[in-house]
Amino acid sequence: MQEIKGIKLATINCGIKYKNRDDVLLVKFDDKANVAGVFARSSFLAAPVTWCKEAIKNGQAKGLIVNSGNANSFTGEEGNASLLRVVEAAAQQLNCDKTDILMSSTGVIGEVLKDQKITDKLPTLTQKLTQNKESWINAAKAIMTTDLKAKYVSSTAKIGNKEVKINGIAKGSGMIAPNMATMLAYIFTDANINSEVLQQILSDITKRTFNAITVDSDQSTNDTVLIFATKTANNEEISDYNSKELNDFKEKLETLMLDLAKQIVIDGEGATKLIKITVNGANSEEACKNIAFNIANSPLVKTAIAGADPNWGRIVMAIGKSEEKVSQDQLAIKIGSFDIVKNGKIAPNYVEEPVHQYLKTDKINIDIIVGNNKTKFSVYTCDLTEDYIKINKDYRS
Amino acid sequence: MQEIKGIKLATINCGIKYKNRDDVLLVKFDDKANVAGVFARSSFLAAPVTWCKEAIKNGQAKGLIVNSGNANSFTGEEGNASLLRVVEAAAQQLNCDKTDILMSSTGVIGEVLKDQKITDKLPTLTQKLTQNKESWINAAKAIMTTDLKAKYVSSTAKIGNKEVKINGIAKGSGMIAPNMATMLAYIFTDANINSEVLQQILSDITKRTFNAITVDSDQSTNDTVLIFATKTANNEEISDYNSKELNDFKEKLETLMLDLAKQIVIDGEGATKLIKITVNGANSEEACKNIAFNIANSPLVKTAIAGADPNWGRIVMAIGKSEEKVSQDQLAIKIGSFDIVKNGKIAPNYVEEPVHQYLKTDKINIDIIVGNNKTKFSVYTCDLTEDYIKINKDYRS
Repeated sequence: MQEIKGIKLATINCGIKYKNRDDVLLVKFDDKANVAGVFARSSFLAAPVTWCKEAIKNGQAKGLIVNSGNANSFTGEEGNASLLRVVEAAAQQLNCDKTDILMSSTGVIGEVLKDQKITDKLPTLTQKLTQNKESWINAAKAIMTTDLKAKYVSSTAKIGNKEVKINGIAKGSGMIAPNMATMLAYIFTDANINSEVLQQILSDITKRTFNAITVDSDQSTNDTVLIFATKTANNEEISDYNSKELNDFKEKLETLMLDLAKQIVIDGEGATKLIKITVNGANSEEACKNIAFNIANSPLVKTAIAGADPNWGRIVMAIGKSEEKVSQDQLAIKIGSFDIVKNGKIAPNYVEEPVHQYLKTDKINIDIIVGNNKTKFSVYTCDLTEDYIKINKDYRS
Repeated sequence: MQEIKGIKLATINCGIKYKNRDDVLLVKFDDKANVAGVFARSSFLAAPVTWCKEAIKNGQAKGLIVNSGNANSFTGEEGNASLLRVVEAAAQQLNCDKTDILMSSTGVIGEVLKDQKITDKLPTLTQKLTQNKESWINAAKAIMTTDLKAKYVSSTAKIGNKEVKINGIAKGSGMIAPNMATMLAYIFTDANINSEVLQQILSDITKRTFNAITVDSDQSTNDTVLIFATKTANNEEISDYNSKELNDFKEKLETLMLDLAKQIVIDGEGATKLIKITVNGANSEEACKNIAFNIANSPLVKTAIAGADPNWGRIVMAIGKSEEKVSQDQLAIKIGSFDIVKNGKIAPNYVEEPVHQYLKTDKINIDIIVGNNKTKFSVYTCDLTEDYIKINKDYRS
């Protein structure tokens, strides 16, 4: 991971749930960063999500604090008070207003965050603030819950003549569905882009990245994606979303966000395969997305792929249950490079065995045509295995 | 199972897929029966579903033929032609118009039904037509696919002074979700009710029975519920849906249909528990239903219950992901007789251990209040276990 000027990070063990690993991350911006965010759409928003939605309205952030092990969700007034004590203590340490501190929590629902465990360690945590390759990776590790792997990625882009840097870290492995269930992602750039434009960019790209993934169709109350721009690259401020100077940045950011999103899917509980499902030609992009998610969330499709079974009838079933208008005559299903269904019929040369072999690999592409409209949407998911059940049956044992 | 005047049944092995069991059912009505039906809403309807939707328009039926082992779904023109040959041969045997023959198919998708295997046996099948307790049970067995148990139930009701009889058979164990995925149900009564009223009754009760169950959220292309009324009870014909004389019949029919629906859920692939989820107080009945299905289809809730884990945070998550407007202050969650959440907070006396013990039983009730509207909806589902994965990974091996 590359270094980005104006950012310092530190992690520490506060013993919220885990004993032998860091569970709190603090990020400090030397000068206030521009900030934008996208959040869970659950009917119940966790305390930190409600806080962030308000706090980003000024478009600025001095610090970010994230804890794992406790979601501070469904904790009512006590949860809000607990959050506020952490935020106020962090604001004191970083010498800023409390609305310049953003916070996320991830872990068990329904237990009030024991804030003192965090606030007691805040002075030490602040003293540890630094930046190097390792501090980025430690940051990605500190926000993990049931994740098996830390998720992080670096990139660069050009804005005009200036090279800008982008770093991203994320967590999530179960309860992942559109609208970003149980996932946290933080993106940092030194680009000088104002917060309104940042918000537009983030909202747009999220649709095709973090909101285009699903592990198990479940969604959490804590999902948060934040982007921070430190402006330290010293490019001329971008204040127009349509500026051509932004094109490369948008493209690189989308690649980076998609990379993080895929890292989340492939770390899905019990997952052994990353599956990309692309639907073309439905009446609208929304309809393509609905069909794609019906396939991606179908337990029968996901178990068939787990078993490397080219059971395309289940894909037909899953398209059908979307109840979208589709043209059976035009229906085509491709698994990898193999034509399975063409023009609404089994492909003339279809042979099962090579598709069975292809499905044994760990990256599966399924391409579907349901009509001749120029619409398209891709979603990413994983297979459904006995291990998913084992992990989630025994969650608290 | 009781006998109902004017009905004869026979089953036979045609070797469509299974070798050592009957796989075709023929039902004959001595005089034409009144008929009504409810069908799958999939974008792709199987050939027999498309046929039935047309054929019931005349409100009459002379015969019903059902095969298991092949769904004749996604089989295009060839599939339609194959169906037509069976229907025409049956019409010849029963000496009626082809539109008086209804047909259902259930099993593998994408393979044209080998109709000759059925038509060859039709004369023998017709000769075997009879009625006794056993022929009803054989009928229920012949329509099974991955079902572990045959599903049937008898009841009686009063229409005026007359006692009328109701028998029902059904199949289904996976791919079960609202709109009756991969389920077939046939209900037979000797009541004299005209076909328009039968249709109204069936459509209404289906909402709260066959459309209120889910095993895995997947839905098939072949779902069919038919009700036949032979009129042999000789009650005065009922031609008004609102007739008070119908009240007892409606009630008994709903109980019978709910009984069959529950038999399907508890036979869900890998299921060990029948779970009833009731949601009260949302903005509309539809909103209650949406919340209830979000819980019932949540893999995280279903695996928690499989593990007898009172992980109520996952129920909160599932309510939240419905995105329905709910009042957190009024939220109440009850598991069995145990208060878990009350007035938006963990119930003061909540202790986990007795709930854990309750969740080890095989009938689980979850009652939820999300607001103070006088609305309510109950859905039925089962737990999600490793066996579901095993069964569906190895479907065709």
